[in-house]
Amino acid sequence: MASDQEYMALAIQLAKRGLYTTSPNPRVGCVLVKNDEIIGQGFHIKAGEGHAEVNAIADAKLRGNDTQDATAYVTLEPCSHFGRTPPCSQGLIDAQVARVVGAMTDPNPQVAGNGFNRLRAAGIEVVDNCLAAESAKLNPGFIKRMSMAADTALPYVRLKMATSLDGRTAMQSGESQWITGPEARADVQRLRAQSCAIICGADSVLIDDPSMNVRIQTEAADGAFQETRQPLRVIIDSQHRVTANAKIFTHPGKVMIVSPVAPESTIHSDVCSVSYLQTATNENSDRQQVDLKGLLVTLARQGINEILVESGAKLAGAFIEHDLVDELVLFTAPTLLGSDARPAFNLPFAKMEQQIRWSWHDVRMVGNDLKLILKRKF
Amino acid sequence: MASDQEYMALAIQLAKRGLYTTSPNPRVGCVLVKNDEIIGQGFHIKAGEGHAEVNAIADAKLRGNDTQDATAYVTLEPCSHFGRTPPCSQGLIDAQVARVVGAMTDPNPQVAGNGFNRLRAAGIEVVDNCLAAESAKLNPGFIKRMSMAADTALPYVRLKMATSLDGRTAMQSGESQWITGPEARADVQRLRAQSCAIICGADSVLIDDPSMNVRIQTEAADGAFQETRQPLRVIIDSQHRVTANAKIFTHPGKVMIVSPVAPESTIHSDVCSVSYLQTATNENSDRQQVDLKGLLVTLARQGINEILVESGAKLAGAFIEHDLVDELVLFTAPTLLGSDARPAFNLPFAKMEQQIRWSWHDVRMVGNDLKLILKRKF
Repeated sequence: MASDQEYMALAIQLAKRGLYTTSPNPRVGCVLVKNDEIIGQGFHIKAGEGHAEVNAIADAKLRGNDTQDATAYVTLEPCSHFGRTPPCSQGLIDAQVARVVGAMTDPNPQVAGNGFNRLRAAGIEVVDNCLAAESAKLNPGFIKRMSMAADTALPYVRLKMATSLDGRTAMQSGESQWITGPEARADVQRLRAQSCAIICGADSVLIDDPSMNVRIQTEAADGAFQETRQPLRVIIDSQHRVTANAKIFTHPGKVMIVSPVAPESTIHSDVCSVSYLQTATNENSDRQQVDLKGLLVTLARQGINEILVESGAKLAGAFIEHDLVDELVLFTAPTLLGSDARPAFNLPFAKMEQQIRWSWHDVRMVGNDLKLILKRKF
Repeated sequence: MASDQEYMALAIQLAKRGLYTTSPNPRVGCVLVKNDEIIGQGFHIKAGEGHAEVNAIADAKLRGNDTQDATAYVTLEPCSHFGRTPPCSQGLIDAQVARVVGAMTDPNPQVAGNGFNRLRAAGIEVVDNCLAAESAKLNPGFIKRMSMAADTALPYVRLKMATSLDGRTAMQSGESQWITGPEARADVQRLRAQSCAIICGADSVLIDDPSMNVRIQTEAADGAFQETRQPLRVIIDSQHRVTANAKIFTHPGKVMIVSPVAPESTIHSDVCSVSYLQTATNENSDRQQVDLKGLLVTLARQGINEILVESGAKLAGAFIEHDLVDELVLFTAPTLLGSDARPAFNLPFAKMEQQIRWSWHDVRMVGNDLKLILKRKF
């Protein structure tokens, strides 16, 4: 007989299949078990479509299984409110399950225990906190955003940088080439695919002319491969220097240009949708610079859970200096570019006490490069 | 019944017990096996004292075991020449062993197959190349030095550096403190203990005033703890700026001061022995700088197998730029010191093609720091 934890682990694996698609919703998985047999399973694929519980119940019915008296394992508390779909807690009640094992309470203030309460009120046994920490890893952005007061809520920010062993990204002259290998670059594609938005700076767009799109295919629920949802591409371009011929405008999806000043003329693209966001000016700067925290708050309000910052040293340094980075993702190539080469982060610290400390989260090889994940240590 | 590889693995473990003590000799272990029982074991402890084979035979006798028809497992070909001790191959012949399993041929030109040949000539079965790669790791310096022509032979050079995630060692002002934790510093003690010599620069001595000695105790053959052999402490001091009150002169052992110019006055210490080495001038420099390669050749001639370079950015950069480093040992602390902080290596490269590539050898956590070992990629 398998344990609650084992079934929950399976539900978490199912939830991960929505890693690239559920935004702005959380990734959720559900397993229905009766007499120690899995009678149905499902996961949330896409906002506006069925939630994990609904998909699992539908799966059980399709397989001719009766859900009455089953146990439902869900990686997040079933919702209690009518959104684009009816509440999942009601779906479980209607399915006449006897027991619900949840990994964690939904931090969404519209749910926040109400889902579990509704189930209990219907006479269903509820067990909470089963593999809570593992389940929370599915949705760092959703959880962070939902756990903060709505008017100041922030998304979860990953900052990715590829450097040499001596922490450099390019020569002083600007000469650069791929430092890291194809496996690391493929990994960046996966980081992009799981992000709701990617932020880059105008410098990167002008110098490197990146596409900033997702070029990997993802697996659909039926196992077929499909085009991946494109994250919002955000360009921080205070002086409106980026022009319409940049590659970033040549791929489907949405591009947002951010500046404290209104543009004199706007860019239109036949391929992607281009929008403009005028933000506050960074108070600490003598130049007109985007208030990065304000930008993040605005993005969170638009349902952006997870952000990947892929930028040059200046913008990366600004994000770090303003303490807006939750997670550093560093790819280190086994090479020395030398002490005149460009640093990864512009951080003009004069005193040791200004250093910014992190805690190790993961260290592994990706191809011939070392991938380090660190989280901010407060 | 244990395999040849299993007994050899034990012999390698024994050899490692000489890691801190055998210099300038190699680390060697020996296991004597008869009827699938270990009847004697030994390892080389210290130059001038018994070799591994002799110690293993003595151990067998002490335990009342007859070595006749035994198999001897040795991590390095038994020597064939009279050095400070009689040849070990003769010792094995006298012990009437039937079979000798060797991990690798001794690259020492005075041996180089003669030991095995002598055994074969005495009618002993010889098997070679058993765990050769593992055994070679015991003696990177000895093997490198012995494998090169005697007049240009070089020691094996490890360069150790402790940096932040962004590759910095101290603030621009010179302000510094321990970046890495106590476990990393203890690891550096072990690196020092296995080195024949430690090289540092005059800048380090003047600014940080390090002791550059080994402060860990090591286990003797009888299991008791003892003071560790102190590696030669080499100071590269082209302008003879270091003075007699430096801490490096306050510990027992030998200190060598290296410069292309003769000193006007010499330093004497009551505690350690101080010598001077006048080297050639580096041809590529406009200033009088030590020819580092020439220095290494001189040290190799003096029986120095393994060197640890513990220096500031300038000297470290010079060693790397002249391609004299076999192994980089980088301790990375989870902190960002910023882009104005001091780089780990002064390497003024202007073009990407000048980058110096390495291959990964080991990645592991040491306390809260990441330890990376890389070897030069040719």
